[in-house]
Amino acid sequence: MIRFENDYTEGCHNRILNRLMETNEEQTPGYGTDEHCEKAREYIRQACDAPEADVHFLVGGTQTNTTIIASVLRPHQGVVSADTGHIAGHETGAIEATGHKVLILPSNDGKISAEQVKEVYEAHWNDATHEHIVQPGMIYISHPTENGTTYSRAELESLSKVCRECGLPLMLDGARMGYGLAAKDSDLSLADLARLCDVFYIGGTKVGALFGEAVVITNDALKKDFRYMIKQRGGLMAKGRLLGIQFETLFEDGLYYDISHHAVELAMMIREAFVKRGYSLRYDSTTNQQFPILPNDVLLELGKKYSFSLWEKIDSTYSVVRFCTSWATKREHVERLLEDIKTI
Amino acid sequence: MIRFENDYTEGCHNRILNRLMETNEEQTPGYGTDEHCEKAREYIRQACDAPEADVHFLVGGTQTNTTIIASVLRPHQGVVSADTGHIAGHETGAIEATGHKVLILPSNDGKISAEQVKEVYEAHWNDATHEHIVQPGMIYISHPTENGTTYSRAELESLSKVCRECGLPLMLDGARMGYGLAAKDSDLSLADLARLCDVFYIGGTKVGALFGEAVVITNDALKKDFRYMIKQRGGLMAKGRLLGIQFETLFEDGLYYDISHHAVELAMMIREAFVKRGYSLRYDSTTNQQFPILPNDVLLELGKKYSFSLWEKIDSTYSVVRFCTSWATKREHVERLLEDIKTI
Amino acid sequence: MIRFENDYTEGCHNRILNRLMETNEEQTPGYGTDEHCEKAREYIRQACDAPEADVHFLVGGTQTNTTIIASVLRPHQGVVSADTGHIAGHETGAIEATGHKVLILPSNDGKISAEQVKEVYEAHWNDATHEHIVQPGMIYISHPTENGTTYSRAELESLSKVCRECGLPLMLDGARMGYGLAAKDSDLSLADLARLCDVFYIGGTKVGALFGEAVVITNDALKKDFRYMIKQRGGLMAKGRLLGIQFETLFEDGLYYDISHHAVELAMMIREAFVKRGYSLRYDSTTNQQFPILPNDVLLELGKKYSFSLWEKIDSTYSVVRFCTSWATKREHVERLLEDIKTI
Amino acid sequence: MIRFENDYTEGCHNRILNRLMETNEEQTPGYGTDEHCEKAREYIRQACDAPEADVHFLVGGTQTNTTIIASVLRPHQGVVSADTGHIAGHETGAIEATGHKVLILPSNDGKISAEQVKEVYEAHWNDATHEHIVQPGMIYISHPTENGTTYSRAELESLSKVCRECGLPLMLDGARMGYGLAAKDSDLSLADLARLCDVFYIGGTKVGALFGEAVVITNDALKKDFRYMIKQRGGLMAKGRLLGIQFETLFEDGLYYDISHHAVELAMMIREAFVKRGYSLRYDSTTNQQFPILPNDVLLELGKKYSFSLWEKIDSTYSVVRFCTSWATKREHVERLLEDIKTI
Repeated sequence: MIRFENDYTEGCHNRILNRLMETNEEQTPGYGTDEHCEKAREYIRQACDAPEADVHFLVGGTQTNTTIIASVLRPHQGVVSADTGHIAGHETGAIEATGHKVLILPSNDGKISAEQVKEVYEAHWNDATHEHIVQPGMIYISHPTENGTTYSRAELESLSKVCRECGLPLMLDGARMGYGLAAKDSDLSLADLARLCDVFYIGGTKVGALFGEAVVITNDALKKDFRYMIKQRGGLMAKGRLLGIQFETLFEDGLYYDISHHAVELAMMIREAFVKRGYSLRYDSTTNQQFPILPNDVLLELGKKYSFSLWEKIDSTYSVVRFCTSWATKREHVERLLEDIKTI
Repeated sequence: MIRFENDYTEGCHNRILNRLMETNEEQTPGYGTDEHCEKAREYIRQACDAPEADVHFLVGGTQTNTTIIASVLRPHQGVVSADTGHIAGHETGAIEATGHKVLILPSNDGKISAEQVKEVYEAHWNDATHEHIVQPGMIYISHPTENGTTYSRAELESLSKVCRECGLPLMLDGARMGYGLAAKDSDLSLADLARLCDVFYIGGTKVGALFGEAVVITNDALKKDFRYMIKQRGGLMAKGRLLGIQFETLFEDGLYYDISHHAVELAMMIREAFVKRGYSLRYDSTTNQQFPILPNDVLLELGKKYSFSLWEKIDSTYSVVRFCTSWATKREHVERLLEDIKTI
Repeated sequence: MIRFENDYTEGCHNRILNRLMETNEEQTPGYGTDEHCEKAREYIRQACDAPEADVHFLVGGTQTNTTIIASVLRPHQGVVSADTGHIAGHETGAIEATGHKVLILPSNDGKISAEQVKEVYEAHWNDATHEHIVQPGMIYISHPTENGTTYSRAELESLSKVCRECGLPLMLDGARMGYGLAAKDSDLSLADLARLCDVFYIGGTKVGALFGEAVVITNDALKKDFRYMIKQRGGLMAKGRLLGIQFETLFEDGLYYDISHHAVELAMMIREAFVKRGYSLRYDSTTNQQFPILPNDVLLELGKKYSFSLWEKIDSTYSVVRFCTSWATKREHVERLLEDIKTI
Repeated sequence: MIRFENDYTEGCHNRILNRLMETNEEQTPGYGTDEHCEKAREYIRQACDAPEADVHFLVGGTQTNTTIIASVLRPHQGVVSADTGHIAGHETGAIEATGHKVLILPSNDGKISAEQVKEVYEAHWNDATHEHIVQPGMIYISHPTENGTTYSRAELESLSKVCRECGLPLMLDGARMGYGLAAKDSDLSLADLARLCDVFYIGGTKVGALFGEAVVITNDALKKDFRYMIKQRGGLMAKGRLLGIQFETLFEDGLYYDISHHAVELAMMIREAFVKRGYSLRYDSTTNQQFPILPNDVLLELGKKYSFSLWEKIDSTYSVVRFCTSWATKREHVERLLEDIKTI
């Protein structure tokens, strides 16, 4: 069985494991105050062209989303998200557990637009009884989205402009950031994100690390006391160095980008193979997740050799499934899959 | 600088790192449903002589405490803890952030007694206005405690008996569990804990692992839907295997005990050295943390070569400090320290 | 200006005010332990044909919804509601502030069906990753709904049956309960509600009282420690007698029903007047709220003499507005309105 | 049985009930936007000599404390209170239910000092691991305190000065405010409180009203969006006019002060009677609550005719009890009590 069901089926990139080996006996102070964390922060600030940014390391995505959102909002405010957003439906109510409503915008492709944000803002403030309604307090987007799609620089510029006009901090969930940056049709750099968002994070768990997410806060107003929030939310690792070492390795010479390109290249090969066979795609994804619409008998056949995840039933004949590649995906596995797509 | 400031200054035991290497390219399903987790669960059930126990793996201590407590209590209930308890003063209000008060009992040595629990229970229910007061809903203890002390089997039997009479689940924080089990004067086994507590956890972070805490739930009433709680609290690792592999390694052939004994043996050598020089100890710790009361000039001198943590100022001349050993402490470092204690 | 904008524009029924006068100098113990509360509880148990029910008095609707829901759910559970439900959009996130998500079902008329509940339940438990999703933990309905519609006994029987099969407590918000019971087409009695729901409340604020909601808990499993919850949520009035006296007066001889019939009769007169003039109704309401779809120039004209609330813009010409009657509405005011509807 | 057990055994002052009668049929808009509320706000601003203050009306004390504190604090912050503070032990964990820890200072008389605040502030910020501890975020005091004692103007000036130096908003719980202002030894006026506190409230429930607390916010930084918070916490009454009418009556011509003086005068008569008989007082209260230390046989005797509350057992012979007077206490009842104190 070859696994394409998600992008966290393996451990981590070899260089990271080697680095953990090399540094294993070093004695360091705890809680992210060690030199590896400091170096990793410096590399990330450089990659973001954001020398004043605060950089923090947390363990996983749900924890990171929760910590940022609970830190930014006041109690009567909610976070605006696409209905497909991870916080909206895949975190067992973690955001609500911090006391905040997730305010939903409909989305076809996983993205939300500047116009939608403008509308939700105006709808709230034009309502004479707005004090009876949750106030939109920040905007949450993902890049790439849960559906593999990406924002263009122009789209993010518009979104950022509206957010700033409305006084709504813009947060970007980058759990799969590397694959977004590596998408051929994406013109967004880390420096763009740092300039256009107020806070975002660079995912490690799905992009080469054992685990870990690097939060970058560029808006000064959101920086205060963030380490208290991390501790309260259970994200302040005793051995913070583990996160520092991993991000140091990923960002010291571009490893993060290289392994992201590898994943995207393989994903696009899978995409083309399905398209060539005449299958449609549910979303126009240019990143590491592909969502072909396949007849159930084809799924059955492919399912004998490959694991993938069922995304959505279209009707009694067709279903959408998800194939993921990652930094760890082997080229020969993809080639075997391509062969099978051709012949099934 | 040789570090004795805490028990998480190094990475992890070599065998764990090797195992992570060996398994790195394995493809596994996510969120703790892989075979390594399954094996680790089995080893732990055996070690606890608790074939029906539920075993879950979380990342860190604050997260684990929060997840268990929030899962057990109803909204109007609080958790009873010694004033020295980790949840009482070292987790940035993580328990309160889940909506629950920590009800404090005074403690000299970090332990609480069956009598104290009985009293707090009766005080609540005898109060005519008890509906205006937080109801004690569970009992939290640590073994060993924050002060390095341990419960005897007789003490834990009494405590457990009272808890069951009062209908109060007994939770045990075992962040340093190994060092408690390894204490020479301790007659408690994992099987005793499983029998006497309702839920407890076996710490990995401070005892040989990179990170990780293994929660053992023996009370059926507390088992339901615990995985939802882990997910909501950000503790359900995508690569759950990382936790499985670590606890598998620690428990497949007693590594956990061996490395704990190593730490305790070295700690007792440090203790004796201080005592021999005529210094008192703040707590009668038989585990990996030692709390000598030292004159400030001795501290200054020792501080040039060794790191340790300031625990408490006694007066203008004396302070309590903490020296920690761990699975990673090198015998030659301790010997050097002993030499210096003798000659200072 | 004659006000039809809502059903809380006046104080309270004269008999209640007189009773407050008569009892004003009585000395009573606090927090709902006085004799007036006891009598009121007894009257309500009788009216519900539920001698074993627990009855509690709270101040307002948002508080009551919050207290019940927070008491029933575990942290990973959500409450299922129609998208029009009061808790879904008019309480500034009060439910989320207790840590729980409101799980939304689409509704045209404000009601939800047994089938919808079955579906949401099955969708959750059939999802292989259900631990990543908020678990449906209870069902919330209103009777009458926010749109003035009512459940038939058959509908509520089905809903109740499905809820019990799924283990989901059924909660009914009766902020306007009296007007539902008084609807000509309604075949539901208080005894039916007590039999079919697990917990519900009888609204006083909008039906003759100065304020106050009477919670009736019939499901034994939900009774425990509810007074703690009321206190914690700020609903345990020091002078609980104020609530007791009001509900005593409303239920000692059927005042609650009489004043509800009055309001509904007047509302139906308004409804008929609009229909006679050829206007459509947005919802088929048989209770005290009516939702005619009117041209904007008619609204402008009526708005000179009457206040009502804008509900929804249909297009550039038409809008839905809400006219409310209540226990306090004067017949002559309605007659004047009818005249104006005829002639406009 | 004559009741001295608390200060909420009766309904409300007659003038308030009359005013409710007179205004009962007025039609007003909801949620505190009516003219009575507006007038009441104006009277209170004048009484406070604080023309820029925001004034809001809530229903009860626990709700008011919760709403203010949850509005002011960030998630990692706690509220500092005397161990005797109402929020510390009499609100079923309502503050913790909003996610915040109550940070306790020891107190003999119910008050806390500027020095204590300074110490707790410095202790936090001098702790190298302060991010692992709840950050003090605001200061909560009561005037009069739970023990009937009052702050002098000099004491409050010092406290206020330290709070402002430390950036800690100072909140004052005035549930019994009237009795504090009426104390003979008190030199604090409402204008002083408005000048020295950042937010406080003027209690109605215990001082002449049926219910209601008037929140006064003088610090601009705490004003924003407070009505959302009231709504979310269940305190925004549909018939807000009820609160407006009551505070209008209490503050239009000094009724609030007159009835407070009445209560305090009677309380001091009780105090003197006990002292004359040679009994000690637990606290030096100059307000409406008196705490004599009495032999149990005297309590038994008095308990046949009078209700009072047991405060604390001293030993097997003596107990502290609380006698409360209020705006409603009848002079002849007190005289009868004085007679019995003399003769027992």
